[in-house]
Amino acid sequence: MGDVGRVPVGIIGASGYGGVQLVRLLADHPGAEVVYLGGDSSAGKPFSSLYPHLTNCIDLTVEAIDLDKIAAKCEVVFLSLPNGLACNMAPTLIEKGCKVLDLSADYRFENLETYKAWYGGERSDSELAATAVYGLPELYRDRIKDAQLVGCAGCYVTASLLALAPLLKQGLIVPETAIIDAKSGTSGGGRKAEINLLLAEAEGSLGAYGVGRHRHTPEIEQICSDLAGHDIKVQFTPHLIPMVRGILATVYATLRDPGLVREDLITIFSAFYRNSPWVKVLPAGVYPQTKWACGTNLCYIGIEVDPRTDRVIVLSAIDNLIKGQAGQGIQCMNLMMGWEETLGLPQLAFYP
Amino acid sequence: MGDVGRVPVGIIGASGYGGVQLVRLLADHPGAEVVYLGGDSSAGKPFSSLYPHLTNCIDLTVEAIDLDKIAAKCEVVFLSLPNGLACNMAPTLIEKGCKVLDLSADYRFENLETYKAWYGGERSDSELAATAVYGLPELYRDRIKDAQLVGCAGCYVTASLLALAPLLKQGLIVPETAIIDAKSGTSGGGRKAEINLLLAEAEGSLGAYGVGRHRHTPEIEQICSDLAGHDIKVQFTPHLIPMVRGILATVYATLRDPGLVREDLITIFSAFYRNSPWVKVLPAGVYPQTKWACGTNLCYIGIEVDPRTDRVIVLSAIDNLIKGQAGQGIQCMNLMMGWEETLGLPQLAFYP
Amino acid sequence: MGDVGRVPVGIIGASGYGGVQLVRLLADHPGAEVVYLGGDSSAGKPFSSLYPHLTNCIDLTVEAIDLDKIAAKCEVVFLSLPNGLACNMAPTLIEKGCKVLDLSADYRFENLETYKAWYGGERSDSELAATAVYGLPELYRDRIKDAQLVGCAGCYVTASLLALAPLLKQGLIVPETAIIDAKSGTSGGGRKAEINLLLAEAEGSLGAYGVGRHRHTPEIEQICSDLAGHDIKVQFTPHLIPMVRGILATVYATLRDPGLVREDLITIFSAFYRNSPWVKVLPAGVYPQTKWACGTNLCYIGIEVDPRTDRVIVLSAIDNLIKGQAGQGIQCMNLMMGWEETLGLPQLAFYP
Amino acid sequence: MGDVGRVPVGIIGASGYGGVQLVRLLADHPGAEVVYLGGDSSAGKPFSSLYPHLTNCIDLTVEAIDLDKIAAKCEVVFLSLPNGLACNMAPTLIEKGCKVLDLSADYRFENLETYKAWYGGERSDSELAATAVYGLPELYRDRIKDAQLVGCAGCYVTASLLALAPLLKQGLIVPETAIIDAKSGTSGGGRKAEINLLLAEAEGSLGAYGVGRHRHTPEIEQICSDLAGHDIKVQFTPHLIPMVRGILATVYATLRDPGLVREDLITIFSAFYRNSPWVKVLPAGVYPQTKWACGTNLCYIGIEVDPRTDRVIVLSAIDNLIKGQAGQGIQCMNLMMGWEETLGLPQLAFYP
Repeated sequence: MGDVGRVPVGIIGASGYGGVQLVRLLADHPGAEVVYLGGDSSAGKPFSSLYPHLTNCIDLTVEAIDLDKIAAKCEVVFLSLPNGLACNMAPTLIEKGCKVLDLSADYRFENLETYKAWYGGERSDSELAATAVYGLPELYRDRIKDAQLVGCAGCYVTASLLALAPLLKQGLIVPETAIIDAKSGTSGGGRKAEINLLLAEAEGSLGAYGVGRHRHTPEIEQICSDLAGHDIKVQFTPHLIPMVRGILATVYATLRDPGLVREDLITIFSAFYRNSPWVKVLPAGVYPQTKWACGTNLCYIGIEVDPRTDRVIVLSAIDNLIKGQAGQGIQCMNLMMGWEETLGLPQLAFYP
Repeated sequence: MGDVGRVPVGIIGASGYGGVQLVRLLADHPGAEVVYLGGDSSAGKPFSSLYPHLTNCIDLTVEAIDLDKIAAKCEVVFLSLPNGLACNMAPTLIEKGCKVLDLSADYRFENLETYKAWYGGERSDSELAATAVYGLPELYRDRIKDAQLVGCAGCYVTASLLALAPLLKQGLIVPETAIIDAKSGTSGGGRKAEINLLLAEAEGSLGAYGVGRHRHTPEIEQICSDLAGHDIKVQFTPHLIPMVRGILATVYATLRDPGLVREDLITIFSAFYRNSPWVKVLPAGVYPQTKWACGTNLCYIGIEVDPRTDRVIVLSAIDNLIKGQAGQGIQCMNLMMGWEETLGLPQLAFYP
Repeated sequence: MGDVGRVPVGIIGASGYGGVQLVRLLADHPGAEVVYLGGDSSAGKPFSSLYPHLTNCIDLTVEAIDLDKIAAKCEVVFLSLPNGLACNMAPTLIEKGCKVLDLSADYRFENLETYKAWYGGERSDSELAATAVYGLPELYRDRIKDAQLVGCAGCYVTASLLALAPLLKQGLIVPETAIIDAKSGTSGGGRKAEINLLLAEAEGSLGAYGVGRHRHTPEIEQICSDLAGHDIKVQFTPHLIPMVRGILATVYATLRDPGLVREDLITIFSAFYRNSPWVKVLPAGVYPQTKWACGTNLCYIGIEVDPRTDRVIVLSAIDNLIKGQAGQGIQCMNLMMGWEETLGLPQLAFYP
Repeated sequence: MGDVGRVPVGIIGASGYGGVQLVRLLADHPGAEVVYLGGDSSAGKPFSSLYPHLTNCIDLTVEAIDLDKIAAKCEVVFLSLPNGLACNMAPTLIEKGCKVLDLSADYRFENLETYKAWYGGERSDSELAATAVYGLPELYRDRIKDAQLVGCAGCYVTASLLALAPLLKQGLIVPETAIIDAKSGTSGGGRKAEINLLLAEAEGSLGAYGVGRHRHTPEIEQICSDLAGHDIKVQFTPHLIPMVRGILATVYATLRDPGLVREDLITIFSAFYRNSPWVKVLPAGVYPQTKWACGTNLCYIGIEVDPRTDRVIVLSAIDNLIKGQAGQGIQCMNLMMGWEETLGLPQLAFYP
């Protein structure tokens, strides 16, 4: 059951990059302990056979997925699976009293019709889905504290929303002018053997994908609409960058009041995030490098106003595998457990 | 004086990446021959002492800059210098009858007031500057043919304008909605020893710079205004990408006629560029990778329409050191000399 | 049948990196023209569907492999296939009069027992294999000129042998002290979707593989033994480097005569390669960067002697896909056709 | 003076990569607290002006170097300076009772004649130098515990010696056959603006440097001689790899007893390092990737025997900035303070 006082945690879907980040981060977490790793394709194998650098460092074996056993063993369960699988497991785990954090898209949507339109598939868990809280603590901190089921925000979405939230919430921009030009390292594609993710193909190159139809679009729009108080559409374009980790979102929008200068906006953002320890609003004239966030749960935000065009340009940088995935899950867990939001999470970058 | 029939060419400022690209490309050019390399800081040194891989491949010595001698020796002169230096040399070279291609910003502006506002310095060559032709063959082919002095388009500008030109020329977009989110490899920063361009700093990272005030902005706006027939402002944001070569411009604009679909625009772009051998308009659903253009003088263009937002998104990819610099200069030279526009320039990418 | 005067060439196995390099290099070759691309898995598809950057640049369709048709159409055939396939096709092509260049290991061994011990499989073409010439022009130029079947040297092997040949041929080193520490970009692994070749895994990392048992070992030893005049064993260790292209071989050996200084060896190497236009022996104190060779058919060689240890250290750098694969094949073809060895091959690096 | 119970630590030379690693690692160290950062060129500036990602994370200002003040404030001082500067500061700090850990070469040599022969300069501190202990805990753990002055082992040296030590100590190899082919990321060159370390130059390329005369050679030889019990010379060749962090040493040596198999050597290495928590000897057939060590203080060791050549090949991988620099310093400090050797140091890699 783990150390006295450390909460037993399970991870289903441990073989991917999200899983290995959870394992690493939780190993340094004073409040939680990983007691179970589950995955059908790797069942029976030592976790270190998937990640040989963990040999003699992490002594866990991947087990077949048995929800009853997991629930008996774990107080908190992370689901780190491809889209469309968590919705088959969460209902049982919730019923048995576990706190569940899903890293996939399955529980990010209030309206399952939106989910089905973009992800396909049938869903029989609409009642449960309606109870899920959206796992972006900077916006839904209080609701996460009381949640039993959290659908953690996606990587692109986190970078995008943290850049847009103060602007939308306070009505500073014309919502339909919002454009998000996002750039991600290739680890965002997961640990999958695909030709376009090979070093020989991706190194030294750059391109967009899913233009006008990436699945993170409706998720961004849902939260933006919630912030703005009415339905809005945003333009979202993801790009693959020849690096392993990191996301930069460059967000453009037209200001309602062209008299605002960047210092005003820096003040507004700083106030908006004053209780958000993982958001760092940068001084005037400083724009974030994704590397500054690498290895941390931080989101760095730089703000510029172009008086020639009356636009605000917000630049937000995160580590896609930490604040964009595993770290965010742990931040949510901290809130659900009543712990400090910063507990056990790194804030000093792996630099250079 | 060179081979019979090959035009003698000089390069002033041969030590940078632009210079070494010119040397490489012209070595394979059937119509031209480099007979002079000039640079004060390297005067007297073999060119191969700057680029050791050229030992026993390129047998040229960098010479001190003596405009009279250069003019006596060369029919065509490329100026590949930092901004603000070409304007002191071009007047003499022009007077002595050379054809001059400047790769810096000095002769890109019709109005020297704009130049001075963004680049500073004094200029006493406004009459000559007024005769210079803007060196982007896809837009100013006929004028380049008759020019004696060409101010070649910058790297970001080339990618941006080739994406915007058909839209602006035909009035398809609301001009003030145009946003250019541009991404460049670090060779665009030149062969300069700067901390932020070190591999240890730039590798694995991504960031914006010059937001709202990059010097390529007025150059883009000048040509966009010319195309649109009235003054317009564009939003331009450059980013540094952890790769050596390549630029991708992601261009957003609102369509005037929301009924247009991407196939319409592909047809329009294809027609616009039907006589431009260096522009490749991609089929529907295909977006360019910068690597596709690497090593070539090509610009690849992908087009998408988002019917949810009534925006067109154009993606254009070039090799910043070829179509964005040395190759474009040679393409302009080909036109000035009455040669085929494609003469001596590579079109098959260095892939992977 | 192609342009008047250009020899019709076929490529079987065109979809990999070797194939696309052959296509690119032959497109600029004045003596040859690709008239056939064969590959069963891609049969019927335009070649540009495999390499979209070639759309409207290369107008060839991949065809099913029909040896009779190929032989009727092509005077020269390149086989660019995984090991163990060429040996089923070469006999027919040779019988029908084609000149055949195999880029795999199938025809690199005089003794098929060695082949079978390291590669496995059965072979019924031992008579034909005995007529094959080893495709490393710097060592077997004269025999290649008269060959109908050439088994082109492998990438690691080329870098290794060009560093060792003068030393072994002239008895300057103790053969059994030879150690080859070789480093390759990941394109050497081919265009295969494998986890360890993903950018997210291979970027920012370095490791050895096949230590003591890489299949290039017997090939190196065969030629070294031929040069030395008696059987020798070498130590060969390959490493995967986080870059796309390039091989560096660092070769160590103990000198028989400790009085030799590096200038002596530079003289000896220069003389040995005086008729080899693709080998560049560097001046004293200069060591090659792989990037110097990228995009060219060159091999750069740097030589050092350590008088403290009586060892010679030779560093050789090539582009693994050109001098290590496709370019070497074309160099061999040039010889087989009676052309200049340098015909149609690039010698100025794609730099930076 | 810092938290109750945390030892006050100073860092002189905080602006480089060694300094920023010390700051980051010590921030998570339960026993120590950085209370002083010194550097003349940055004196008076907030540390975060050198590393903007630390804004609002690390609240320290770089101070002018005043040895009296430092000694009054700090119990432990790290010197992270270019070679030849620490020797002017250590005598005063030692005299005033500080424990001193030098990351440069100044106190690595028992015999200052060797130091002067390879590094130049005069030294007036030979008595003090004779008391310094070599800072490689795996070999000199007991002496470090009692030391007041430690000259921490260099990055290449650490990877090399950990691979060689069991072989030399137990007389398993012929010492003069030892060859170390070492590969390092470019951060090993420090945070210096040099052309050859630019991303545009170093990315996609690989080369050797300092062949036969790198300054780490005598340091390796000194310790190897100590282990072997007699003077020996080794061959050491460093290479620069296109990645930020990590060193791989590929070490070759001829076995005295050709009957040894790799499993024997794995057993011997495991026993040798059984009390060394930072060394991980890998199972048979597994070779380390540098990325496995990145972000940790670990050294991974893979071992192979080639029965064809009677050689052992040892592969050792470290993070050059942690086990090769700052982490090693902290590991030594832990010993000097009587703490657990592992205290406050990371062991789970930053992966991928």
